[in-house]
Amino acid sequence: MSRYRVAVHIIPREGILDPQGHAVADALRTLGFPGVQDVRVGRHVVVETDADTAEAARTETRAMCERLLANPVIEDFEIASITRS
Amino acid sequence: MSRYRVAVHIIPREGILDPQGHAVADALRTLGFPGVQDVRVGRHVVVETDADTAEAARTETRAMCERLLANPVIEDFEIASITRS
Repeated sequence: MSRYRVAVHIIPREGILDPQGHAVADALRTLGFPGVQDVRVGRHVVVETDADTAEAARTETRAMCERLLANPVIEDFEIASITRS
Repeated sequence: MSRYRVAVHIIPREGILDPQGHAVADALRTLGFPGVQDVRVGRHVVVETDADTAEAARTETRAMCERLLANPVIEDFEIASITRS
């Protein structure tokens, strides 16, 4: 068993309205960043988990995303990185 | 002017209590992932912005983080990637 640190990105699916992202984009333009075209706000989740191999840690983290971390109706997720910690 | 897509990670600073992360870790263990040791929940923000160069897009996005996106008292941020879109 080793300990792995798995980073996951969970972002609103393309085509799904992201009101938080719109609000942030408006605020940034108002603050003096006129070049901002679009903002999308998602979650960055870092899971530290014990697993036999990095591949096992990836499989387990995918299952965590499907069961709890992401809402598949409105969100996509991707495993961004896996490092031994 | 080109359009750049800049991804930013905003995470609770080391040593700062992350109650959302603790709740997620507890829920994952209850759901049948006993190997989970720790979870930290941050934000993954993707900004699409017009800038002359990738370096200008990076500098501008750092300023956005400092002024609006991150709370420097309790959060760290890092520019995860910059791609031309």
